[in-house]
Amino acid sequence: MLKLQGIIPPMITPLTDQDRLDLASLESLLEYMIDGGIHGVFLLGTTGEAPSLTHELRKQLIDAATKIIAGRIPVLVGISDTSFTETIQLAKTAEKYPVDAFVLTHPYYFPSYGPQFRQYVDHVLDAVSLPVILYNMPENTKVKFDLDLVRYALDRDGIIGMKDSSGDLDFFWRSCELAAASGKEFPILMGPEHLLGTSIRLGGSGGVSGGANLWPSLFVRMFEAAKGNDLAKMRDLQKKIDLLGKIYRVAENGGRVFRGLKCALKYRALCSGITAQPFTEPDPAEQKRIFQIVDELNPVKL
Amino acid sequence: MLKLQGIIPPMITPLTDQDRLDLASLESLLEYMIDGGIHGVFLLGTTGEAPSLTHELRKQLIDAATKIIAGRIPVLVGISDTSFTETIQLAKTAEKYPVDAFVLTHPYYFPSYGPQFRQYVDHVLDAVSLPVILYNMPENTKVKFDLDLVRYALDRDGIIGMKDSSGDLDFFWRSCELAAASGKEFPILMGPEHLLGTSIRLGGSGGVSGGANLWPSLFVRMFEAAKGNDLAKMRDLQKKIDLLGKIYRVAENGGRVFRGLKCALKYRALCSGITAQPFTEPDPAEQKRIFQIVDELNPVKL
Amino acid sequence: MLKLQGIIPPMITPLTDQDRLDLASLESLLEYMIDGGIHGVFLLGTTGEAPSLTHELRKQLIDAATKIIAGRIPVLVGISDTSFTETIQLAKTAEKYPVDAFVLTHPYYFPSYGPQFRQYVDHVLDAVSLPVILYNMPENTKVKFDLDLVRYALDRDGIIGMKDSSGDLDFFWRSCELAAASGKEFPILMGPEHLLGTSIRLGGSGGVSGGANLWPSLFVRMFEAAKGNDLAKMRDLQKKIDLLGKIYRVAENGGRVFRGLKCALKYRALCSGITAQPFTEPDPAEQKRIFQIVDELNPVKL
Amino acid sequence: MLKLQGIIPPMITPLTDQDRLDLASLESLLEYMIDGGIHGVFLLGTTGEAPSLTHELRKQLIDAATKIIAGRIPVLVGISDTSFTETIQLAKTAEKYPVDAFVLTHPYYFPSYGPQFRQYVDHVLDAVSLPVILYNMPENTKVKFDLDLVRYALDRDGIIGMKDSSGDLDFFWRSCELAAASGKEFPILMGPEHLLGTSIRLGGSGGVSGGANLWPSLFVRMFEAAKGNDLAKMRDLQKKIDLLGKIYRVAENGGRVFRGLKCALKYRALCSGITAQPFTEPDPAEQKRIFQIVDELNPVKL
Repeated sequence: MLKLQGIIPPMITPLTDQDRLDLASLESLLEYMIDGGIHGVFLLGTTGEAPSLTHELRKQLIDAATKIIAGRIPVLVGISDTSFTETIQLAKTAEKYPVDAFVLTHPYYFPSYGPQFRQYVDHVLDAVSLPVILYNMPENTKVKFDLDLVRYALDRDGIIGMKDSSGDLDFFWRSCELAAASGKEFPILMGPEHLLGTSIRLGGSGGVSGGANLWPSLFVRMFEAAKGNDLAKMRDLQKKIDLLGKIYRVAENGGRVFRGLKCALKYRALCSGITAQPFTEPDPAEQKRIFQIVDELNPVKL
Repeated sequence: MLKLQGIIPPMITPLTDQDRLDLASLESLLEYMIDGGIHGVFLLGTTGEAPSLTHELRKQLIDAATKIIAGRIPVLVGISDTSFTETIQLAKTAEKYPVDAFVLTHPYYFPSYGPQFRQYVDHVLDAVSLPVILYNMPENTKVKFDLDLVRYALDRDGIIGMKDSSGDLDFFWRSCELAAASGKEFPILMGPEHLLGTSIRLGGSGGVSGGANLWPSLFVRMFEAAKGNDLAKMRDLQKKIDLLGKIYRVAENGGRVFRGLKCALKYRALCSGITAQPFTEPDPAEQKRIFQIVDELNPVKL
Repeated sequence: MLKLQGIIPPMITPLTDQDRLDLASLESLLEYMIDGGIHGVFLLGTTGEAPSLTHELRKQLIDAATKIIAGRIPVLVGISDTSFTETIQLAKTAEKYPVDAFVLTHPYYFPSYGPQFRQYVDHVLDAVSLPVILYNMPENTKVKFDLDLVRYALDRDGIIGMKDSSGDLDFFWRSCELAAASGKEFPILMGPEHLLGTSIRLGGSGGVSGGANLWPSLFVRMFEAAKGNDLAKMRDLQKKIDLLGKIYRVAENGGRVFRGLKCALKYRALCSGITAQPFTEPDPAEQKRIFQIVDELNPVKL
Repeated sequence: MLKLQGIIPPMITPLTDQDRLDLASLESLLEYMIDGGIHGVFLLGTTGEAPSLTHELRKQLIDAATKIIAGRIPVLVGISDTSFTETIQLAKTAEKYPVDAFVLTHPYYFPSYGPQFRQYVDHVLDAVSLPVILYNMPENTKVKFDLDLVRYALDRDGIIGMKDSSGDLDFFWRSCELAAASGKEFPILMGPEHLLGTSIRLGGSGGVSGGANLWPSLFVRMFEAAKGNDLAKMRDLQKKIDLLGKIYRVAENGGRVFRGLKCALKYRALCSGITAQPFTEPDPAEQKRIFQIVDELNPVKL
């Protein structure tokens, strides 16, 4: 059975053009992250700019990435679309490749509340053949999960875990407590990477940390330090994670995380800085500031 | 040249199933609204549940609706998708049919700010061959237009107007003032229907009023009363519009406008109450309450 | 009976020190505003920094201002405190002076909803002997009035009008409609000055415009142009009001309106720039920018 | 030196009337809480309805409470007012009694940002002779502390700790980390009581838990369990704290915490349910529901 533990980066999608995959960078980035010790990879998430990509390109990415990974680590794939039927079609496409689980958010144009989303998830589960991780992403979907949804997820076959990007540590902790009380293996993964260490202390299973595209071993070490309850080491690593996080505060006008990450990865020759529309690369002054932060992060260790 | 004035309802999308168009209802609803005096129709907007529908179904809708309309009124089509390239593909598909203009929102997963959206719009305009109406829909896209964007739109060939669903009457009025000062024909249409009358008094050109699916002549009369500055008549019509608006406050858990409208239209035998996922029809008690409001609205006049 | 129509500036409170009134400036500022044609004055509002002043200083201000005004224009006095009994004590003090009406907000520490605030208002009305104007100030009190409260106010003896600083033009217009339908004289005054012109067109009675401390005749002219429905003149005046409004966007870190106004008035030698704690004067660069805006406003006309 | 550790309840203010202290209940409630093992008490906080009380009543409360307490536990007193000078007067009054420290929030009408609040705090510290605890209460003051303010507080003589009611566990944890790194004794206390256990695990020093008015030993036990890292016991106590917290969700229309607490205390004959204006007691159905929760909490143990 799939083991979701540790650092599972939401991979940025390397592009040579908004409709063309950068296959060379895809390979080098994946090898770099696997070398860095990551425990899995999440394709086509928010950091992967999935909603900005054509369905065709998403398919190419799954195809190419799974070939490169070749079973070395678990592969999660985001399948969310605003249309139920397009979501199922994405899933059907992804099922043809060696993918381990799907990641599903609430559809992101219309918010819904109460039982409707649960029924929606039921219908998705009935239509797909891989296990599903629910993804709580209120900033982009407008819908914040509540503990009733966690209870539902714990009871429902086919749902094997949750990724929580709400930033609400009380919700995160209570979800972990519910999972622990259920006796079920039900990993809960932290989205925002600056909360990774704290989340592990509160019962979390790992992190979907965007910064692990740039410095995978940093997050792997934080995960291990937190599992070992090594507070002194955690403090030291937190400083580096916070410094890395400054990259996300440089680029103005939206899309800061992946625009910042791609810019930093460009500086490290791991991919181009190209993002899909409506985003553009950070401007020259912003790029320079991002490069400085990467330098400050100590490129040898990186 | 296309004249955008008056009531241009955002048509609900009649369904027999979430992936199947209800062609009979489509025809009867369009005829009903045209009989009611509407000045155009907007397909595949928010009320039309466009983001919840497959691209295939959207194409079928454009095909069928334009055949029924047969040039009698202008046809606007929403082309927004989170992916730029999918947006262009939707537009290319729509261009094969007798469509008059496109309606474009900000992509709705990631918000962006500043020049990026203007550049995005430029790229869309370069790729499509029909004029475009910009659609300010902050509630669903997270991006609220500012007056700089209105200034850009007024200067940019290919953009012929704006639909404003922000509910910010000061922004609406200032946009109208900018349009008036430009000397250009640049209609600005009000989204929220309870603001229709006021918006016309402040310089607006008309309304994209969801309630006109249910009672087109009510909104046409409000438009005319407001153009004629007949405050007494406006007051009387406003009461009916406010009563109709209660329909949108019945259904809980999201999607209230189209779920309420479809339920009311079902009661009037104009279409089924079926909505695309993740939404379900209002529950029986809610439906009963909606039927009561329709009754109260005076079914003879309806 | 008190006639509330036109421009009733919320007077800034001139200080030589946070606990000392600047009597000379008080006199010159009041004479300047009366010369400018204002129709009343509102002491101890938000712009007057009332909550930051001691009760003793508030009493001195009422004493001094009413002596200077000497019945030439109506005087409104804000009496709100978070404590009911302190509010009544403020009112009792103010009643000893020739004051025309009180202005009352929701107590501003704890928000309350529903019937509690109505009961609170009832108790205030029972305890004071002057008429009361309700003041909708959600930004500072966290409580936004609804139309039920307006209906209550229209029915309740002792409430003679409303000041609306919510910025919600639809609420403002609907309140005016309710007032008109009641057949009662019930003036509704606009808070945010950039909405003054529009508010008059929608049925408002005037404005509590902070900028009238600096340029009273500008707002008086806007009021008159709007009453006369002179759209061309309104457009011209709106440009000046918008330029004046830039003063409020200069000072960072809070208190922008009165900090900006006092800085501009200092430049025009009408008072010092001193504000009560926790606020400080704008920094030198900000002051310079404010002075430039005042210059641009045309000092001769000012 | 004052030791701030453990459970320091924000005492409700027992009233026989909104302007009259209930001295008998004050004594019985204080004895009840001291018996329950509390480590200090906080008078005139949010739960104590301080902003709704006259300055005279606040003085009476300090007088009476300190006499009853007679040095058995540390006494903290809230001194915040919107006026700086009134704040100092409250402090001067309180200094005449055996009070251990003051609690200071941002003034709560106007928000300010950046250096202004730090300067304000400096001025308060210069004017008072007791140590000060800063109180982060964004919900009521509109101003959320940032880590720069925590750094300032750690450096500034006279500030001996912080109470954090923001509910932001990441901010809380980072504040604790800054305090630990400073080498200074600087307790950080958690406001929201459902976060008490987690906050201790993250480095907090205790809780200002409103529910300790009703069941002091419950919170004392949670504090001790968390200090001892007894997760099983914490889980059990958390369930009770969560059940108690349901009391706060019963009363509608604002003021839920103290209205709920006073109602529960009335049921337990520890004080009347009377609250200061604008609040009223929960309605009969709400009261019944609150009584049921108290029963469910196990009255013997209570």
